[in-house]
Amino acid sequence: MNIILASTSTLFGGDYLEYLKEELINLFKGIDEIIFIPFARPGGISHEDYTAKARSFFEKINIKVKGLHEFDDKIAAVNNAKGFFTGGGNTFLLVKTLHEENLMSVLKNNVESGKPYLGCSAGSNIGGQNMRTTNDMPIVYPSSFDCMGLVPFNINPHYLDPNPELKHNGETRETRIKEFLTQNDLKVIGLREGNWIRRKCDRITVEGTELTRIFEKDKQPYEIEPGTEL
Amino acid sequence: MNIILASTSTLFGGDYLEYLKEELINLFKGIDEIIFIPFARPGGISHEDYTAKARSFFEKINIKVKGLHEFDDKIAAVNNAKGFFTGGGNTFLLVKTLHEENLMSVLKNNVESGKPYLGCSAGSNIGGQNMRTTNDMPIVYPSSFDCMGLVPFNINPHYLDPNPELKHNGETRETRIKEFLTQNDLKVIGLREGNWIRRKCDRITVEGTELTRIFEKDKQPYEIEPGTEL
Repeated sequence: MNIILASTSTLFGGDYLEYLKEELINLFKGIDEIIFIPFARPGGISHEDYTAKARSFFEKINIKVKGLHEFDDKIAAVNNAKGFFTGGGNTFLLVKTLHEENLMSVLKNNVESGKPYLGCSAGSNIGGQNMRTTNDMPIVYPSSFDCMGLVPFNINPHYLDPNPELKHNGETRETRIKEFLTQNDLKVIGLREGNWIRRKCDRITVEGTELTRIFEKDKQPYEIEPGTEL
Repeated sequence: MNIILASTSTLFGGDYLEYLKEELINLFKGIDEIIFIPFARPGGISHEDYTAKARSFFEKINIKVKGLHEFDDKIAAVNNAKGFFTGGGNTFLLVKTLHEENLMSVLKNNVESGKPYLGCSAGSNIGGQNMRTTNDMPIVYPSSFDCMGLVPFNINPHYLDPNPELKHNGETRETRIKEFLTQNDLKVIGLREGNWIRRKCDRITVEGTELTRIFEKDKQPYEIEPGTEL
């Protein structure tokens, strides 16, 4: 496999995907066209405009982008594609759509066969075992929370440290992930913005500029350095 | 109906339920025993300890508390109860448990018949039409997102205003609720900590110390004062 699962598409003050540019040139080496999966987007911009946003980045690195929504036969489109990018938005909407259109397993098979895959945020959540560690609001009801399982753990994108100054009684992100671990025995990668998971064949590492926080059942959470194997 | 749906059980720096004390004396007037529903709690403390926490508050206002987990026949327990309190925790776990045990509709029928009901946080979410505006992590998969519908709208408890200083790309609460409105045509009450919804017969008001933010499809969000009818 040849994949990147990024915490976010955009760093604060930066342009869309800009901080990942060198990584993406490498990920998609030898590929001149990819399919963009815009289904996480719940509004604000259309699938068409969202695809155009991805296209305007990828044309800088000489890769053409087609939106999956453009195809009548989406399963054939995925099977014929050379590589994939799933953008962020709402994970519930993305997972519901992929299951409804029978695309989750088709995409999984294509990525497992070696086609390069980039996910950002919700697009990274679906690379995990299931979507039970998303931060998103359950605005729609998917037929299942199962995802592609491209890595043997779950991801929490946009991982955020607690703010000690906040006079608020809502759960912190850490509390929420610990709640997950009371009901599930599965490692969770708390992926801060600026970091991504890189899988190349069987080697899985965490990369980027920040430490990464790891949560496992019956263990204290711990931090690992960029470059650490997962 | 005679209900309170509160944003939170505990204000910053305060004791459990303390800020609601006068309201709860009024809500449960003439009642000497209630059933506590601890099923939102995903760990940290047991159902037993969570019930003891509720009990230690309610004994101050001379109301006995029994935990619903103590009963072999939970449906009969709800049907025989004089009033209810559902505590906070994880809404997915609470809704999954209530549906599995066929308690959602039994509880709804009992509250609609006039028995007083207090919900906090997750316990307030289940008073809405569905749980699609919870903030919680989907750590388990409920058989349905439908809730009791004790009020003709949805609630977002612990409503939190955006922090303009946060250099983070995750969605704000307002963005998430607007995403909900792209997929659902249902009013959402952004209930800040310190506020609660009061229903007495057919009159529904928002009460507390803060303004309340209201979200409706195809409208700009707007703020209402405590005491406003919903």
